Amino acid sequence: MNGAQALIRTLVDAGVDTCFMNPGTSEMHFVAALDDVPEMHSVLALFEGVATGAADGYARMAGSPAASLLHLGPGLGNGLANLHNARRGRVPLVNIVGDHATYHAQYDAPLQSDISAIASSLEGWVHSCTDPDAVARDAAAAVAAAQGPPGQVATLILPADVCWLDSSGPATPIAPATAPDASENAIAEAAAALSGQGAAALMVGGAACMQDAVELAGAVCANSGANLLAETFPARLQRGAGRVEPQRLGYLAEFAQAQLAGLQHLILVESSRPVSFFAYPDKASDLVPEGCQVHVLTAPGENSVAALSQLLERLGGDAEPVRQAAARPEVPSGSLDAESMANVVGALLPEGAIVADEGNTTGLFVSGATAGAPPHDWLTLPGGAIGFGMPVATGAAVASPGRKVLNLESDGSAMYTFQSLWTQVREGLDVTTVILNNSSYAVLEMELARVGASAGGEKAHEMLDLTGPDLDFVSLARGLGVEQASRATTAEEFAEQLAAGLATEGPALIEAVVPPLL
Amino acid sequence: MNGAQALIRTLVDAGVDTCFMNPGTSEMHFVAALDDVPEMHSVLALFEGVATGAADGYARMAGSPAASLLHLGPGLGNGLANLHNARRGRVPLVNIVGDHATYHAQYDAPLQSDISAIASSLEGWVHSCTDPDAVARDAAAAVAAAQGPPGQVATLILPADVCWLDSSGPATPIAPATAPDASENAIAEAAAALSGQGAAALMVGGAACMQDAVELAGAVCANSGANLLAETFPARLQRGAGRVEPQRLGYLAEFAQAQLAGLQHLILVESSRPVSFFAYPDKASDLVPEGCQVHVLTAPGENSVAALSQLLERLGGDAEPVRQAAARPEVPSGSLDAESMANVVGALLPEGAIVADEGNTTGLFVSGATAGAPPHDWLTLPGGAIGFGMPVATGAAVASPGRKVLNLESDGSAMYTFQSLWTQVREGLDVTTVILNNSSYAVLEMELARVGASAGGEKAHEMLDLTGPDLDFVSLARGLGVEQASRATTAEEFAEQLAAGLATEGPALIEAVVPPLL
Repeated sequence: MNGAQALIRTLVDAGVDTCFMNPGTSEMHFVAALDDVPEMHSVLALFEGVATGAADGYARMAGSPAASLLHLGPGLGNGLANLHNARRGRVPLVNIVGDHATYHAQYDAPLQSDISAIASSLEGWVHSCTDPDAVARDAAAAVAAAQGPPGQVATLILPADVCWLDSSGPATPIAPATAPDASENAIAEAAAALSGQGAAALMVGGAACMQDAVELAGAVCANSGANLLAETFPARLQRGAGRVEPQRLGYLAEFAQAQLAGLQHLILVESSRPVSFFAYPDKASDLVPEGCQVHVLTAPGENSVAALSQLLERLGGDAEPVRQAAARPEVPSGSLDAESMANVVGALLPEGAIVADEGNTTGLFVSGATAGAPPHDWLTLPGGAIGFGMPVATGAAVASPGRKVLNLESDGSAMYTFQSLWTQVREGLDVTTVILNNSSYAVLEMELARVGASAGGEKAHEMLDLTGPDLDFVSLARGLGVEQASRATTAEEFAEQLAAGLATEGPALIEAVVPPLL
Repeated sequence: MNGAQALIRTLVDAGVDTCFMNPGTSEMHFVAALDDVPEMHSVLALFEGVATGAADGYARMAGSPAASLLHLGPGLGNGLANLHNARRGRVPLVNIVGDHATYHAQYDAPLQSDISAIASSLEGWVHSCTDPDAVARDAAAAVAAAQGPPGQVATLILPADVCWLDSSGPATPIAPATAPDASENAIAEAAAALSGQGAAALMVGGAACMQDAVELAGAVCANSGANLLAETFPARLQRGAGRVEPQRLGYLAEFAQAQLAGLQHLILVESSRPVSFFAYPDKASDLVPEGCQVHVLTAPGENSVAALSQLLERLGGDAEPVRQAAARPEVPSGSLDAESMANVVGALLPEGAIVADEGNTTGLFVSGATAGAPPHDWLTLPGGAIGFGMPVATGAAVASPGRKVLNLESDGSAMYTFQSLWTQVREGLDVTTVILNNSSYAVLEMELARVGASAGGEKAHEMLDLTGPDLDFVSLARGLGVEQASRATTAEEFAEQLAAGLATEGPALIEAVVPPLL
């Protein structure tokens, strides 16, 4: 059994049985070993950013990591943006980066580069394996590191000769660590804050955005009068009719500040202190209002369910959390714009859907319009690196057979990782992609004004404009093998096409032509 | 004048008047300042790998750097593969990476990451500017660093507040350094090696692949009986009828070893010691034959023209270098395959063409078929990171108005940076793209066998296969705005479509459907 075979066998034994890949020559022994470990599901991507984003999406839904397989430093570079997003979302991911054979590095061949330096930017577990007898143990360690809690990107750098040389065989998986408990102090401090006079809020993030924690957080709020907030961009939020939905903090600092205004206590439940996504001249970066005390109930990876249970017990009371009532908008008619598009989605979203939301400005109303739809999952962009939606939808679909994935995707964002559609077709994935085509980087048009850069001259606006030529997403989709691809220019057309897409098993794409929101 | 205005003014004053970009919020003041410095030509890319590859292609043809503008760590990641290629080709490039405002970093906002760590993998000049009064000087230093010689990637990390705050205005450009002379010893050693008994060869690389150096190297060979070789993947080779063409070292180690067999002296002229591109079990990494002495006439960045002139003078003799005779293949008819495709290109390549060659296995015969075509430039892949061809063609066209660019692009490679076509349409660039569609990662099928990984099972071959679904490059091109897009399945069709593409001003794409070569 060579190193590659021992590695893949260990991954499968440790529960990592899906690998999204874009391999090269240095990964050929890994690829060859796939036939020796039939339990490993290997999924080919045409671009590394698709592979890493799919691994992210897979883990968000499966709750356990997938692997990605990349080709040396440049492959890691191509996959880095979506690894950044996984890191920021604390999503577990086993990132395998093939490298030259150990003895080949000294020759400084063309593809030689400092893979460790690039991987170090992910601030997770990084290890370069140099011994075929150690590779299986390293794989087990990588899986355990990825799982956390909290989850992280574990990067295993894998020289070609470590794969091809004889190994000592597979390693025993390491049992996943359990989430540590919050301190008694943290619980007491939160209880005191909630029992006092001032306005208070809980803000959930990370794993605490799952419904088991959110239900408890909602009960805490119901029994203390606190508000229930969530971080701006959770990796996964379970929502819909009958569920407790925290109010997500706004992306725009002004909105977030309005949500936080007047608070005297902000209790963080696996979330970070709220800060502005970007800096702006003469605007605050730290969004916590003056005089507001910030308390940490649980740090990321701590046991929020246990901590919230204890907190609820201390507070007492039996008020039920506020649950979302079932409600859907009417299917609208007339012009297609951000609002009517959102209402169509709200009217048609099926139970159990998984929404990968990279709708940006045009998507602004969708969250509201779907709040009372049947229960579903909502995947957002924790790291802010655009181009996550299509890959994450792809991986989520791999992890969730039988569930419908809806990808709301802005035009500009789509163009970073559009190759995802090909993998969706190849794997027969049940993903309906809605391209929100407003022919501009609308979010940047807004930001250009917000940063006070200037009114913006002609050249500046040209850099934010996606016309000349217009992107034709129906042609692009057909080029990647998506047969069911159509364009909608009215609300009726969009409703009809979305219904058809959701009714089809397998990939479909709808280009929704909408005016810029702003 | 704010920092961004001072920076852009300084770049233009230093001769960097083209910037390929994919900006985000932290770059909005840079974008706004474009209208204040009208001499700066800003070119929008839909993906960062297009921007960095285009900057590479631009500099290869212009001989002076362009700038790229990227959005924080994830943007740098997306652009990293083509920056790697520029580094390996010693191509000058001013790489500007926008960052959060200096005071915002402490808040660890979602897009925060260690940009310096990622940039350090490029082993060039890296500097983070923190002072708006220094940014113009830093820009001048970045340009000087990029220029070398030899050229390198100079990365300037640019916090948003450095752009928006008042600055002390533009800085004076730094005069480019001149190439240092080779040592007397190096010249004497090469002369002695060439005057002795054993078989010898000169191997040119980097700037020594330009015709002024190659002519002299050819004369040295003509007067000493040495062979004239070139590195495997030069950034730019000037070739065609009437020119002196060195024989490029083969990509496959077996071929390179055959070319080097029997040599007793190998004289490097700005090239590296020949090594295998990848490592293979039981095969050599160092390709220099036993008993062969390696001499360095010039290191990269040294003055090869001067050194070769002195070497020629020492050797004496007035034999002329061997020049390529004018010759073109006939336009073939019948089936379209690697050979007939190459002959069509050889028959039709116009004088002054620039060929961006990412033809991989299918492109194997093109170099031979075009050797006697009218003088032209040949751009290859020094760093081995695929996805360079379409961006480099884009940037080469921006740098070379009035010249025809031909991009030979393999199907798999095309899918990394296909977004390039949109920029070509937007800028009205005269690029004809030929997609060599053999429906597989054929080079990896070959490598799978060569690494001795196994005969390759079904799952392994699936990971190297690009069918199911088939890629439709005509649809993809139309989706990106290329109106002149067609598919050729016979030699006649290909000849007709290539002639039409070359006759058109502006972008055209031909999908050449060919069987795998191997």
